[in-house]
Amino acid sequence: MLTEHVGDLSLGQTGEQHFTDKEIYQRDLEWLESADAVIAEVTNPSLGVGYELGIAEKLGKPVLCLFDDADHNCNLSAMISGNHKITTFRYTSLKKAKERILDFLNAIT
Amino acid sequence: MLTEHVGDLSLGQTGEQHFTDKEIYQRDLEWLESADAVIAEVTNPSLGVGYELGIAEKLGKPVLCLFDDADHNCNLSAMISGNHKITTFRYTSLKKAKERILDFLNAIT
Repeated sequence: MLTEHVGDLSLGQTGEQHFTDKEIYQRDLEWLESADAVIAEVTNPSLGVGYELGIAEKLGKPVLCLFDDADHNCNLSAMISGNHKITTFRYTSLKKAKERILDFLNAIT
Repeated sequence: MLTEHVGDLSLGQTGEQHFTDKEIYQRDLEWLESADAVIAEVTNPSLGVGYELGIAEKLGKPVLCLFDDADHNCNLSAMISGNHKITTFRYTSLKKAKERILDFLNAIT
């Protein structure tokens, strides 16, 4: 559902200026709690994504992290790559990323 | 304890190359689980720090996040700033950050 939101064409480049931080937190937490699984693109460092991964893990959600293996400017945190509770996939093409997502979803349904 | 580790002069600029990601994850998770409280500097986006904040919150640890209010290149994620379970302090000087840390520690001991 978060993906649908991010892809929403009505969302401007400046983000969500009509919501307070508290409203965004509450809404995103509810989305997380209602999710069957969490799939995150983690190539770029993000405090908010990292936080959601920790919460998702503790909520017992299946978690898949996708990391762009061609991006040599970024390293994946050992808290994710060394974590047996989180599935990590280093993709070399969008095609392979999509295939891995389908495998992940098929395995949990 | 993590701070003592990061400040360890024997730690080289290239980090911890003699540990696997799994070993780093396991060790840092044990540090987190044994901590009385978590204090994180969150000005720069970090997936690993975000992850640890989510885990710390779910473990019921008191959490203080410090954000450099003078750094206008970075925004703090709403998952932290809008989160009532995490204390956030935007510091304008190291002196004020230290004072806030002491207040935070005094309040939980």
